[in-house]
Amino acid sequence: MNFTIREGMIKDMANVLELIKELASFEKEPDAVEIDIYDLIKHGFSSKPAFKIFVAEQKTEIVGIVLFYPRFSTWKGKTFHLEDLIVKQEKRGQGIGKALYHKFLEYAHQQKVKRVEWVVLNWNKNAITFYEKTGATILEDWRTVQMNEKALNEYITNKK
Amino acid sequence: MNFTIREGMIKDMANVLELIKELASFEKEPDAVEIDIYDLIKHGFSSKPAFKIFVAEQKTEIVGIVLFYPRFSTWKGKTFHLEDLIVKQEKRGQGIGKALYHKFLEYAHQQKVKRVEWVVLNWNKNAITFYEKTGATILEDWRTVQMNEKALNEYITNKK
Repeated sequence: MNFTIREGMIKDMANVLELIKELASFEKEPDAVEIDIYDLIKHGFSSKPAFKIFVAEQKTEIVGIVLFYPRFSTWKGKTFHLEDLIVKQEKRGQGIGKALYHKFLEYAHQQKVKRVEWVVLNWNKNAITFYEKTGATILEDWRTVQMNEKALNEYITNKK
Repeated sequence: MNFTIREGMIKDMANVLELIKELASFEKEPDAVEIDIYDLIKHGFSSKPAFKIFVAEQKTEIVGIVLFYPRFSTWKGKTFHLEDLIVKQEKRGQGIGKALYHKFLEYAHQQKVKRVEWVVLNWNKNAITFYEKTGATILEDWRTVQMNEKALNEYITNKK
């Protein structure tokens, strides 16, 4: 392993944002990233951080991240949600992603959370196979429902 | 409307837990609820609360709840996750669920979150129709992945 994994710090956020944007471009949604570096710093490093992040560092370069935060299940209690696991495009195939995934699960285990969860695209068979091999379960009959800011504004305006 | 909606308090947690258990029984998973009243108090009313809750009260009875918490999108920023919207079985059809849903969306709007989200069973057509009417979108190609406590323990043990 020619990389190390450590907790992300404020000074990493410019590189972290680059990785987030790189992934969005790869997913053909380059304009979907509306946050900026100050949002990452404000939300991630306040007295009540909205997320926690581990970074993979190769020499002095940030080559991958795993970003997560707590959730609460009214059946199980405290859980973690894995929001982003990103490895820089040209750094794939070196085990960086697996190492970040492992770091996240190890930390979740240490924190004694009752469950970890995340989402996957249903056509991403490689990812699904990998997750299942590690003991995760795909919930086939649940769907995510979202109301974005615009829809929320419209709902509120129409209800007034 | 012969009910009022207000913020949930510690004194409500016994009734809230009853509602959570009632829903689990209805969903034929009565043993799935592993939390107790102390978990609800500890996680919901600490200096860094894991969730926020509004309750619907009829006379002195808690007849419904909406429970949610913040999440963080690396594309959009701060979001809310609606974890539970429950109306007591025999109190349905009085508009209590809609009022709780509205209260949640109104609060989300006031807090200027960038998105609200939750999950729905794909066969629950009535719920889906209702959500879509209010402007929400069902994400058809994303699946939830979960690793529960047991699977997490096994993963960690096997990796050691």
